[in-house]
Amino acid sequence: MTALRVATCSAPTNIATIKYWGKDSTALNTPLNSSVSVTLHQDDLRTKTTIAASPAFATTHLWLNGKEQSINARVQAVLREMKALAHKQHGEQALHSWHLRIVSENSFPTAAGLASSAAGYACLVATLAELYKVKDESPGQLSSIARQGSGSACRSLDGGFVRWQKGVNADGSDSLAVRVADEHHWPALRAIICVVNDREKDTSSTSGMKTSKETSTLLQHRVASVVDGRLEQIEAAYQARDFATFGELTMRDSNQFHAVCLDTYPPIFYMNEVSRKIIHIVHRFNTFHGAVRAAYTFDAGPNAVIFLEDKDVAAVLALLQTYFPTTRDGGSLPIQTVSSASELHQWRNASFPADLRAMTQVSPSPGGIKSLYVTRVGGGTRVLATNESLVDLTTGKPRIPRVEKTKEEPAPSPSRGPLAVLTALVGMFTLLSVARR
Amino acid sequence: MTALRVATCSAPTNIATIKYWGKDSTALNTPLNSSVSVTLHQDDLRTKTTIAASPAFATTHLWLNGKEQSINARVQAVLREMKALAHKQHGEQALHSWHLRIVSENSFPTAAGLASSAAGYACLVATLAELYKVKDESPGQLSSIARQGSGSACRSLDGGFVRWQKGVNADGSDSLAVRVADEHHWPALRAIICVVNDREKDTSSTSGMKTSKETSTLLQHRVASVVDGRLEQIEAAYQARDFATFGELTMRDSNQFHAVCLDTYPPIFYMNEVSRKIIHIVHRFNTFHGAVRAAYTFDAGPNAVIFLEDKDVAAVLALLQTYFPTTRDGGSLPIQTVSSASELHQWRNASFPADLRAMTQVSPSPGGIKSLYVTRVGGGTRVLATNESLVDLTTGKPRIPRVEKTKEEPAPSPSRGPLAVLTALVGMFTLLSVARR
Repeated sequence: MTALRVATCSAPTNIATIKYWGKDSTALNTPLNSSVSVTLHQDDLRTKTTIAASPAFATTHLWLNGKEQSINARVQAVLREMKALAHKQHGEQALHSWHLRIVSENSFPTAAGLASSAAGYACLVATLAELYKVKDESPGQLSSIARQGSGSACRSLDGGFVRWQKGVNADGSDSLAVRVADEHHWPALRAIICVVNDREKDTSSTSGMKTSKETSTLLQHRVASVVDGRLEQIEAAYQARDFATFGELTMRDSNQFHAVCLDTYPPIFYMNEVSRKIIHIVHRFNTFHGAVRAAYTFDAGPNAVIFLEDKDVAAVLALLQTYFPTTRDGGSLPIQTVSSASELHQWRNASFPADLRAMTQVSPSPGGIKSLYVTRVGGGTRVLATNESLVDLTTGKPRIPRVEKTKEEPAPSPSRGPLAVLTALVGMFTLLSVARR
Repeated sequence: MTALRVATCSAPTNIATIKYWGKDSTALNTPLNSSVSVTLHQDDLRTKTTIAASPAFATTHLWLNGKEQSINARVQAVLREMKALAHKQHGEQALHSWHLRIVSENSFPTAAGLASSAAGYACLVATLAELYKVKDESPGQLSSIARQGSGSACRSLDGGFVRWQKGVNADGSDSLAVRVADEHHWPALRAIICVVNDREKDTSSTSGMKTSKETSTLLQHRVASVVDGRLEQIEAAYQARDFATFGELTMRDSNQFHAVCLDTYPPIFYMNEVSRKIIHIVHRFNTFHGAVRAAYTFDAGPNAVIFLEDKDVAAVLALLQTYFPTTRDGGSLPIQTVSSASELHQWRNASFPADLRAMTQVSPSPGGIKSLYVTRVGGGTRVLATNESLVDLTTGKPRIPRVEKTKEEPAPSPSRGPLAVLTALVGMFTLLSVARR
């Protein structure tokens, strides 16, 4: 019988509230400034990766959502670093030289621009750590390896509210993730992800960051004089569960990131008319309540993430349904969530005050939003049981060619609530895609 | 026979290439930073004002485009300052206490957002100066009075390329306009004004400036560290007729102004999808030519002004016609210009290289642009002949109720080229409207 080692893990996505934009070192993938993010719950959005290692494998292969990919330089860097760490912690082992079968899948369409590279590289590092049984020798050490895959991936290894500290070491070794608060700290916090219809092609964030660093004087100012103060304030606000401060800083920082994109030459636009309408509606909602109770943030694309507390979910969903029905005659927005069926039913039947509608003063944009996720704060990467493996050990290939399966069987997963609607579309997950924050 | 004094003047609009945004003193109407603008030719866009003074008038009245307006605080300030200057220069005269009939008209629709307040207040000052026969005692003195009406108005008294210097005096007396180059300096320079269809209500610039000053850290940086260097560079570029430098700085500064608006809390959006498509097309045009040969700038609204040299007018008009026809089946964009019929004919028949079309990669937006003006650099305010008077001296009221006349007789003015299309719409001119740069 041929020797074989297999590990399967899952990893969450994260959404930055103080944004990362601009690399200090392209080679090390270190940032111009520290950033901080909320880890989103894996029950709603996650990447799952299985890695099998065997002396029987002649080469290393990688499949993403059922499609084989070439092993790019960033994946190579992560493999090299993780093997070196295994060697250091356990001495020389045959295992470290065995070739790999890496199979990775997203629970969400990558085409929707939901920060798949963060979850993808975090999951790669977690699964290699499980395969080689390596551990952090100092806090955040593994996250600094994930960072080399995709900057924001370092923030997806841990749950809760996570800071990616810029670091000061010349080798980037202290450019890693630090937990600010765990995933149980703010149980009422929710996030609504609005997947916005996007007709224009985005500027990749790697290319955009490079141009911003070269041309935007406002980015220099932001890095030198703005971000550190905001980080201190927002971390204190998160610790205190002070939504008004957390929300205002989140919105201001999203806007400043997009302002820097506009100050870039030539200018970069990631938000579209739908994004701007969401911004308008959120501000009107807050004005109506006389307090910041909902806060938007946008990464390098038009999708909005709206943070809020559980008490306001129904009202904001009702607003979104009113202004962004799927069709002109008010078609229901698909909502994906693991919340209970009764909660979803309650959301579906919520309305909002007529006074708020009157003051919102925008016209509906049918079809502007494709679908919504309603999610919450979640934990870091998880080690999964053997029966979750994505590798067919008889063939060494993906157990289920996910893309084809989904085309044939678009039925909702049984683990979802009966009213939850699954988007059938499965986009192409790609580790080649660049960090989106 | 009752004593009567009458004066009639005209004034141009101007478009800033380094933008004014934010007031240092609201009371004095002084700016946070110096700015510089191109004066546009009055044959294409101008305000005309007649003022009659008589002891027979019991009160002062003001009509704008045929509609009577109340005399607001800014108009009062201009009247007070001009009367004080007349008194100083000529001693006490009965004339200075006579009530006035002020009649003002625009040659363009104010609703289109074409900086009417700049031309309006410049014309008010010029006409009062002619009525009272007062002159600058020091360069720019009258412009500092226009500034108190509307900041950017100070730049409309003179022609060519005009700097509004911030000034240092506590009373604002040296916050005034300085000529950088006269209107004959760069004969090849042209401006295409794209009047963009706008569905959303704008934030007024007075209110926007106030919020930006209070909330945008990027504005503080811009004022402290960016603008002065850009002014020096763009003035040198204008002097040298170096379009590439002039154009790049113009675009960068427009983008930075809008970046500051986005960094404002809550954020302000003045550009829309059509504005962004114009930006995209201009950059592609420049990339195609391997040099900056067209440059956009946007004030506090979605309208674009595209600067370029005469050699490129036909190609850029052809691009605009291709991407922004008035109808889905390619309806011709109305072009308003005093250029010759033969030139207009040449423009209408121009095309652009297929290679450029291939690289532009955007879909047409029929109806996105309402109309175009093709204009050039022009001179400052003018004193007009008696037969141009807008006041009916028998009634002391507007000679021709312009709004009603236009409704009855929408025929093009005979002074325009035969192919030029006049937009029949006459918007309401209002001196109450705020500065748009």
